[in-house]
Amino acid sequence: MKTISENRAFGGVQGVYSHASDATGCDMTFGLFLPAEAEDEPVPLLWYLSGLSCTHENAMIKAGAQKWAAEAGIGLVFPDTSPRGVGVADDPAYDLGQGAGFYVNATETPWAQNYRMWDYVTDELPDVLFSTFPLEEDLQAITGHSMGGHGALTIAMGFPGRFRSVSAFAPIANPSASDWGRKQFSAYLGADESKWAPHDATMLMRKRGFDGPMLIDQGASDQFLDLLKPEALAEAIALRRQAATFRMQKGYDHSYFFVASFIEDHVNFHADALQG
Amino acid sequence: MKTISENRAFGGVQGVYSHASDATGCDMTFGLFLPAEAEDEPVPLLWYLSGLSCTHENAMIKAGAQKWAAEAGIGLVFPDTSPRGVGVADDPAYDLGQGAGFYVNATETPWAQNYRMWDYVTDELPDVLFSTFPLEEDLQAITGHSMGGHGALTIAMGFPGRFRSVSAFAPIANPSASDWGRKQFSAYLGADESKWAPHDATMLMRKRGFDGPMLIDQGASDQFLDLLKPEALAEAIALRRQAATFRMQKGYDHSYFFVASFIEDHVNFHADALQG
Repeated sequence: MKTISENRAFGGVQGVYSHASDATGCDMTFGLFLPAEAEDEPVPLLWYLSGLSCTHENAMIKAGAQKWAAEAGIGLVFPDTSPRGVGVADDPAYDLGQGAGFYVNATETPWAQNYRMWDYVTDELPDVLFSTFPLEEDLQAITGHSMGGHGALTIAMGFPGRFRSVSAFAPIANPSASDWGRKQFSAYLGADESKWAPHDATMLMRKRGFDGPMLIDQGASDQFLDLLKPEALAEAIALRRQAATFRMQKGYDHSYFFVASFIEDHVNFHADALQG
Repeated sequence: MKTISENRAFGGVQGVYSHASDATGCDMTFGLFLPAEAEDEPVPLLWYLSGLSCTHENAMIKAGAQKWAAEAGIGLVFPDTSPRGVGVADDPAYDLGQGAGFYVNATETPWAQNYRMWDYVTDELPDVLFSTFPLEEDLQAITGHSMGGHGALTIAMGFPGRFRSVSAFAPIANPSASDWGRKQFSAYLGADESKWAPHDATMLMRKRGFDGPMLIDQGASDQFLDLLKPEALAEAIALRRQAATFRMQKGYDHSYFFVASFIEDHVNFHADALQG
């Protein structure tokens, strides 16, 4: 593993590291914030999955999560959103290919060779993190924004017992019924929609839900509401009687200003679950 | 004036605007955060001047100042760091020309035509702001990072009575004695060093000081310490008996992670001065 940078931040260290990934067949870069407590003992870990067109860097520099993670003594990991590199398949559209991995294992040509972000985020990167850094594998939580909210919700529900809590900012909530989902799932997973179901938060909520607390924030002035479909997930949460808080935030859009405005609540929500 | 974007943030609005500038002879862009209180009445204003290579955007998206400004009911303005555009003189180096205005009025060819950032930040942009937005002209404070810390200190001392308080993150503290300063002042202001003195924070501190509280944060692991020369300013502050807090922060470097780590303290410091 290679250290790209390490900066003192909020009494801890904001690092950026890269490593050769078997899952994606390319070098992968991630950001990791460790609070001061990590100098003495392993700390809990909150995953932050980012959205379309983002790298590991966007949330790391724009969301302002480190302040609250430092106060709570929690680590933060910021994975990249897809495989990358000149030999990696891509598409001119911002919402397919590099920067748009959708947290699935692609089975279709030309994506299958590298686009295995499900395995990367749920298997390989955890191995790297827990074998290298002072992090408590038994104390994990997960959040994300937009495509990353989709990833957080589907991964949390896909691995019962792994995460103490899950939250999301403006998640792609029902991708099987959205142009943010149908296009990508068709390309990565093929035409058989039964393969899509494990990657649709609304369908997972209908089928099994999440065994812990859940927090969803959605901007009421989000320019992508028609693609995100929060109403489908809200209905599924209510029908399942899922322990959850769903907040429609008046005036907020899809930007990082929205994420930054509520990140304190999300980190504290996870801190309560991780330390309770 | 043209609205580039407006995003809800922390209960207020983060806007980006551009306007034709007489001072710089080109279009200038700035960021302005207005807290919720500005919907009802004029609010105090904290200026944030940015460093080398920055635009209006860097601090606006990386520093995390809005959270604390919202809590204190204070507006934030993020000016650009130089004139810009195809017709504006430039230099291949990152520390001269576009992105490196140094908050002076250039008198030398080819810079004199557009590089009038002192007039822009102290005269024209205030006129634009106070005539357009609900801001209290009598309640101003100023801060900045690196070259912007230099700007904040020299402007605060250059306009006695205008600012209630001044602070800086890793300011270029003694540019007349540094390669971050001698190069630029020679180019913009010419060889006569007497013209440089009003733009050197340490020399201004020796000569007159600031009529209000001052806060300086400097990372002890800053990679540019030799260029910043904090020791010169610290000595001048002590010799003048200037009301000031100078903090050498162990382990911190020159990055925005350093700024973000201490922005809460700076905004609250200014809020106390503005509301006291």
